[in-house]
Amino acid sequence: MEVRKVFLTEDEMPRQWYNILADIKMNPPLGPDGKPINPEDLAPVFPMNLIEQEMSTERWTDIPEDVLNVLSIWRPSPLVRAISFEKALDTPAKIYFKNESVSPPGSHKANTAVPQAYYNKVFGIKRLTTETGAGQWGSALSFACGQFGIECKVFMVRVSFDQKPYRKSMMEAWGGNCVASPSTETQTGRDVLKESPDTPGSLGIAISEAIEQAVGDESGQTRYALGSVLNHVMLHQTIIGLEAKKQMDKIGEYPDIIIGCAGGGSNFAGLAYPYVYDKINGKDIAIYPVEPTACPTLTRAPFAYDHGDSAKYTPLLPMHSLGHTFVPAPIHAGGLRYHGMAPTVSQLAAEGIIEPKSVNQLAAYEAGVLLARTEGIIPAPETNHALAYVVEEARKAKEEGKEKVILFTFSGHGLIDLAAYDKYFAGKLNDYVLSEEEEHKFETCFENNPKPELLKSC
Amino acid sequence: MEVRKVFLTEDEMPRQWYNILADIKMNPPLGPDGKPINPEDLAPVFPMNLIEQEMSTERWTDIPEDVLNVLSIWRPSPLVRAISFEKALDTPAKIYFKNESVSPPGSHKANTAVPQAYYNKVFGIKRLTTETGAGQWGSALSFACGQFGIECKVFMVRVSFDQKPYRKSMMEAWGGNCVASPSTETQTGRDVLKESPDTPGSLGIAISEAIEQAVGDESGQTRYALGSVLNHVMLHQTIIGLEAKKQMDKIGEYPDIIIGCAGGGSNFAGLAYPYVYDKINGKDIAIYPVEPTACPTLTRAPFAYDHGDSAKYTPLLPMHSLGHTFVPAPIHAGGLRYHGMAPTVSQLAAEGIIEPKSVNQLAAYEAGVLLARTEGIIPAPETNHALAYVVEEARKAKEEGKEKVILFTFSGHGLIDLAAYDKYFAGKLNDYVLSEEEEHKFETCFENNPKPELLKSC
Repeated sequence: MEVRKVFLTEDEMPRQWYNILADIKMNPPLGPDGKPINPEDLAPVFPMNLIEQEMSTERWTDIPEDVLNVLSIWRPSPLVRAISFEKALDTPAKIYFKNESVSPPGSHKANTAVPQAYYNKVFGIKRLTTETGAGQWGSALSFACGQFGIECKVFMVRVSFDQKPYRKSMMEAWGGNCVASPSTETQTGRDVLKESPDTPGSLGIAISEAIEQAVGDESGQTRYALGSVLNHVMLHQTIIGLEAKKQMDKIGEYPDIIIGCAGGGSNFAGLAYPYVYDKINGKDIAIYPVEPTACPTLTRAPFAYDHGDSAKYTPLLPMHSLGHTFVPAPIHAGGLRYHGMAPTVSQLAAEGIIEPKSVNQLAAYEAGVLLARTEGIIPAPETNHALAYVVEEARKAKEEGKEKVILFTFSGHGLIDLAAYDKYFAGKLNDYVLSEEEEHKFETCFENNPKPELLKSC
Repeated sequence: MEVRKVFLTEDEMPRQWYNILADIKMNPPLGPDGKPINPEDLAPVFPMNLIEQEMSTERWTDIPEDVLNVLSIWRPSPLVRAISFEKALDTPAKIYFKNESVSPPGSHKANTAVPQAYYNKVFGIKRLTTETGAGQWGSALSFACGQFGIECKVFMVRVSFDQKPYRKSMMEAWGGNCVASPSTETQTGRDVLKESPDTPGSLGIAISEAIEQAVGDESGQTRYALGSVLNHVMLHQTIIGLEAKKQMDKIGEYPDIIIGCAGGGSNFAGLAYPYVYDKINGKDIAIYPVEPTACPTLTRAPFAYDHGDSAKYTPLLPMHSLGHTFVPAPIHAGGLRYHGMAPTVSQLAAEGIIEPKSVNQLAAYEAGVLLARTEGIIPAPETNHALAYVVEEARKAKEEGKEKVILFTFSGHGLIDLAAYDKYFAGKLNDYVLSEEEEHKFETCFENNPKPELLKSC
């Protein structure tokens, strides 16, 4: 019997997060006046302790004991060797994954939800607001807020709210409150509903509602939480890669290839950044973020200053972006349908330290089904995108006859997304590739930016 | 930080199952003629290697290497100390659970699905049929058949099929085929549909369809599989308790109290039987199977000879039974809505070695929500019943001021059952208690039995 799983004890959990900002030079986020923003500018939206973390360039940050205690409900997560998947692919490659689907909400999102709830709690915040698309982030934040006894309000994009009723149920099981967005609870929501009562909603609208409700609470006890893109989110996720390193050490392995799906970038960054540190320090390792061809932020969009949301509430962030008004094709991988990409991931791509790849929807589901039928776990649609590229690398290893070591992050399970698998089996899913026309639509988004010139053309 | 989880390595997995039949004396199953059945009588339904296991009285059975290899996808399962749940209950009791929700199909059912698929495969069987109510068993068997490359056909009770579409999707993701029962694929199904086209179906009908299709395959390459009740199913599940013992040993603990929910009995037996062995050999330990007040097989029904299915296809089994025509109230815990109870569990209850308890539906969901909000995992409705009794024992420990060690089995997660939680939160779930009238209905079931006298009145 070959060993499949490598565990760490709770005592072996990393005690610090790794901050990539210590090792790369970034362009600063800009305010509406085109000047770098100050911590105070963000104070109505986030608590100051998280803003400090967002701007810190210290390489290591201690993980608070209370955060470790909650993370230990499911962490350290298992490192799994996908033996049966390897056999089905008939590859000499060794394929390992960090199984982030074991968290209560079912994905890596809990890794940052827990510290975000904790820091807000410590800062005296009584209530968090957020938006959610596919529902993974809203679930994770509801779970985390429940652990620290603070309220959680989730604005869930109407179309997902209707398609995935179980996500709302999960949030409520943990004590969260979830409403369809646009809602009648905010001015933004009421305005949209007046204009188009039957709108399916969008992430842009939901973000605007969540921020409006957070900054509008006159008691000052409400803040907003974001599940990806920002530096502090990437920081919290590095526990994935830090654990993976310890686990690989235990079995005397080191990866040749790192793979993770990337929507806003946090799942990818979580596994990759500790290895990016190694690469910057001379290690020979290939690192691939994988995105859908329908929303090819890193592979086809320019590196520019753009807003994180369609309503332009956020500062201008230096990132690969398809434009803040971009509406991606309706692929069934909600977590990857985002117009931008975390600034740090964008910067690493621009510098050639990581090498972005894109895969199509049908290849993603095909790989996901193969994984389910071999390793048992049914992957989230987002994870399927990583898997499709794992399959490509495994085939390449076979052609080259090389025993490469591939490590990827299994971002979440697909148990609440089974309707998408039904569509796949029924032949109702399509491939989508961004058209050239769409590719150039973004340019109008950048026209009025205070610093419109592209940082680097894609 | 207190340690929450105790893991075993794959090398530490038990290599043998424990057979309770070595340590208790049982009444034999009877055929239609009132005489004990022979192995050959079961040969059209099950493969001979499993029939031998069903009738074996050897204390230990080796677990085949190929079975261990598949079990190692998720086993050994974690032993978890429910620290946050304890704190919420303010109890001096230490509460541990075996987390069986970590299997790919999400419950303990996979522990027997895998060996059943394996033994059928070894015997040359190409296709398995089965029924499923809530869907846990059908999912588990689909997963297991996929691992050994045999076909799986699941007849799912129509009402559950319509209420829980994700269960069908799961089965299909693993390559299984699931149809609503009654179906047009069997004579039984066609007859029922002719009579009542709008029937919601029943487990009785679904079993009949599955057996009909298995024995009706003239190639002899199809057999039927059952997910509970039978001796070989209990045998396979003992891996739960055998692992738990090793894990408790590692932290120097031994339980005072064992708790498991019991529908057909396999989840309970899996944890309990290795401890029953200790109890028979002098250990002071309390062992409680927990059932719903709506279907109180062990706590209110007689111990008698009865059929396992409503169509009387099965032999007469010596068991606690509400009568094979009993239709339990529509509680949201499908896995506990069974008229009978495993003969071995029934025998142990009759001998007073285990002490059955019953709990009501609302107390079960209340306990489940508390567990979800403290420990994170959302439990299956069946697991909630065990939890309700854990809460009772934890309160008792508090009243008595005793640091008791409670160990229960967390049979599965509730991610596919979230609609039931919605009903609970909306105040749409009710308590059900069996009426005295219902309690005596069963007697008519036994009238025409070849050996109708009760083995022991309840």
